[in-house]
Amino acid sequence: MANLRSLFSPRHMLVLSIALNVSLVLKIIRQRKNMREKVSRVSMEKPKDAQIDEESQIEASSIQQNMHPTPSPLAVNGGDADDGRNVINLDHGDPTMYEKYWQEMGDKTTVVIPGWQFTSYFSDAGNLCWFLEPELAKEISRLHKVVGNAITEGRHIVVGTGSSQLFLAALYAFTENDASEPFSVVSAAPYYSSYPAATDCLKSGLYKWGGDARNFTKTGPYIELVTSPNNPDGFVRQSVVNRSGGILVHDLAYYWPQYTPITSAADYELMLFTVSKSTGHAGMRIGWALVKDPSIAKKMVKYIELSTIGVSKDSQLRAAKVLKVVSNSCGTAARPRENFFAYCHLLMAERWKLLREAVKQSGMFSLPEFEPGFCNFFQRLFEPLPAFAWLKCEGSVEDCESFLKSHNIWTRSGRHFGVSPSYVRVSMLDRDRTFGCFVKRLSQIHL
Amino acid sequence: MANLRSLFSPRHMLVLSIALNVSLVLKIIRQRKNMREKVSRVSMEKPKDAQIDEESQIEASSIQQNMHPTPSPLAVNGGDADDGRNVINLDHGDPTMYEKYWQEMGDKTTVVIPGWQFTSYFSDAGNLCWFLEPELAKEISRLHKVVGNAITEGRHIVVGTGSSQLFLAALYAFTENDASEPFSVVSAAPYYSSYPAATDCLKSGLYKWGGDARNFTKTGPYIELVTSPNNPDGFVRQSVVNRSGGILVHDLAYYWPQYTPITSAADYELMLFTVSKSTGHAGMRIGWALVKDPSIAKKMVKYIELSTIGVSKDSQLRAAKVLKVVSNSCGTAARPRENFFAYCHLLMAERWKLLREAVKQSGMFSLPEFEPGFCNFFQRLFEPLPAFAWLKCEGSVEDCESFLKSHNIWTRSGRHFGVSPSYVRVSMLDRDRTFGCFVKRLSQIHL
Repeated sequence: MANLRSLFSPRHMLVLSIALNVSLVLKIIRQRKNMREKVSRVSMEKPKDAQIDEESQIEASSIQQNMHPTPSPLAVNGGDADDGRNVINLDHGDPTMYEKYWQEMGDKTTVVIPGWQFTSYFSDAGNLCWFLEPELAKEISRLHKVVGNAITEGRHIVVGTGSSQLFLAALYAFTENDASEPFSVVSAAPYYSSYPAATDCLKSGLYKWGGDARNFTKTGPYIELVTSPNNPDGFVRQSVVNRSGGILVHDLAYYWPQYTPITSAADYELMLFTVSKSTGHAGMRIGWALVKDPSIAKKMVKYIELSTIGVSKDSQLRAAKVLKVVSNSCGTAARPRENFFAYCHLLMAERWKLLREAVKQSGMFSLPEFEPGFCNFFQRLFEPLPAFAWLKCEGSVEDCESFLKSHNIWTRSGRHFGVSPSYVRVSMLDRDRTFGCFVKRLSQIHL
Repeated sequence: MANLRSLFSPRHMLVLSIALNVSLVLKIIRQRKNMREKVSRVSMEKPKDAQIDEESQIEASSIQQNMHPTPSPLAVNGGDADDGRNVINLDHGDPTMYEKYWQEMGDKTTVVIPGWQFTSYFSDAGNLCWFLEPELAKEISRLHKVVGNAITEGRHIVVGTGSSQLFLAALYAFTENDASEPFSVVSAAPYYSSYPAATDCLKSGLYKWGGDARNFTKTGPYIELVTSPNNPDGFVRQSVVNRSGGILVHDLAYYWPQYTPITSAADYELMLFTVSKSTGHAGMRIGWALVKDPSIAKKMVKYIELSTIGVSKDSQLRAAKVLKVVSNSCGTAARPRENFFAYCHLLMAERWKLLREAVKQSGMFSLPEFEPGFCNFFQRLFEPLPAFAWLKCEGSVEDCESFLKSHNIWTRSGRHFGVSPSYVRVSMLDRDRTFGCFVKRLSQIHL
């Protein structure tokens, strides 16, 4: 008994207790480590580098989007190390600029999808768009309300595999199978370079590319595509054909406050949006249409059924989470640095300032000048800061794309947008180092 | 000093230490709880019920796929509670049967995607299919090797938003923009019901639905679709037109050992597969094509660029993880119960046994009879166990779909498959309770 008592003496108990403490503290440290790994690791346990590998990214883009190889990889180790021989590819609009914001947000938008969930084709019973995840629908409406850029009340939301699919769905929905001739599809030049090819690639009997809306004189039914702010030039647009019975599709991919003043809530028949340009998540392939007429929405749903039997649920869930975080970031409870649109607007303003300085320094180019507008979202006046720069080679240079290519800067010629090759479109949404390298190189181009 | 010493006496220290222990233990419990919630919760914090809500699911399917409302929700609380008034919808092929297996696998296929990753349009620099995630490509090749159902060496993998998109991409790739007339697209009846509508929905000038391949006599270029095992009837197929210069597209969505003996590794020009039917993840919208000719693969990639600018990365990552787990489950290290194909084969065998018994008991229907074949994967002989039952109403019933509808069983009429309405296609892949209810009700239908 005495032995037992000495075994449970306060001294012995203290030693035991301290040992227990040590083991518990170690356990907590281990658990925390596991948790951190679980959240931050790439789901596939694949060795994707968390750090941005600028060189391989730019090489990749060059090879892929343009389908021709990059002469040499970009090996820019700092502003001064650029010897001008490496390709800077700003031909496409890959929105990698946004990575930085999302990295700073840490695991706020991390999604976890268990293997046995979301396996069915179907998402929402009562909804006309049966493959739309209800959570995404909710967050789309909420974000438009927060930003004030579009009316969602009384509209049908149709989700698509990017807004490209929704554009084609809209053409299918507005045209008629028994029409005597294809509907003309037109847009004022400079128009988005993919419209003609996407419209005509299958030689559809329902619709046919009709070219520049400003020169459109053909009689018969037509669909006018109004991209506002416009890709490539960033200007706010209205329809130009203005014939009675004309059908309008409004592509509002860039109608967000990081790019342009939100002057009113858009209220058109059919409006297209996409996460690629609003939040920078191009890899998700998620777009949405806000549609007034239920019979048009129904036909769009039918097109998506026939072409892809719905839209990835995984990406819809991820998009819903991202939109939710963006809406939350605009609330009064969020820190100012967190406000998604303020953060990205600042980035765009800084980039446009640098670009305009470079253009001035070079003396060989010009850029569009924009009128400032009052933005209801930021409650102040500012000039548009488009996602693309619509750059013009001044003087004797006729083919601006080739000219810049000779300086290893890849852009997209005005020809693809239905206008003169003295213009090029340049992406403003690449990563910081690429953009920095671009403006530096541009500023050094002289006659 | 004495006071201080008594403060640090073993007794006082013990009390402090025990208090610390209690707080640490509580902390560990809280952390574990958080972690469990983090992993098992639906990413959206949305109240999706982890338990399967059979009623609302079936109601949902009815409304959605058929675009007409369900007369009354299925309220089957047990086999005996079915009063025959509730709709059993087996019209579509939603593979919800597979949920059970994936639930049993727990978090083995859970994916975690951080918000800032996979935001770019691009996936793989060196690859012809620039939007294909390398991890998915690797797991596709590995699974085909494990199962032995298709040759992947020397093929290009093109990923698509389901195999529907790849089917359209193949039509685009094989046809010619300057051909004098559209290519005929044919398939031997009974053919997959979506082929005619998907082919003709845009009135393409490149291709046109040409009907039953067995009656195809038109001269000129044609594409024959060979679905093997066939949807709807489950038979193994070869091309039937067999004209020189004919182009073949092999839809091998069901060439997996849960459905049919794997007799050899398929080695065709262009082969289509999808996770919807192989693993049951229809909501991902991931399919892939194995393509011999790089110029055809390149044109397919172009089509996907023009129609959706690539394929959801999130779903590609999830699909890669699922395929990896399936391949692992076939290894010798896995427990027998875990083997994905063995597990699902057993389910299918049980279902076909029950269905054949019900058909016998009713006396009003017939089913196809299959020759057994030797399966290289399972190393034994067995009869095909198709994903759909191709049910025929015998006797005086001419319209089998309407007849079954009068018993509140929804199926798809033979008319949609290019044959007599005395046939219907019935999904064999719904959840256990729906299937159980179906065979019970069927067995009780008598003249």
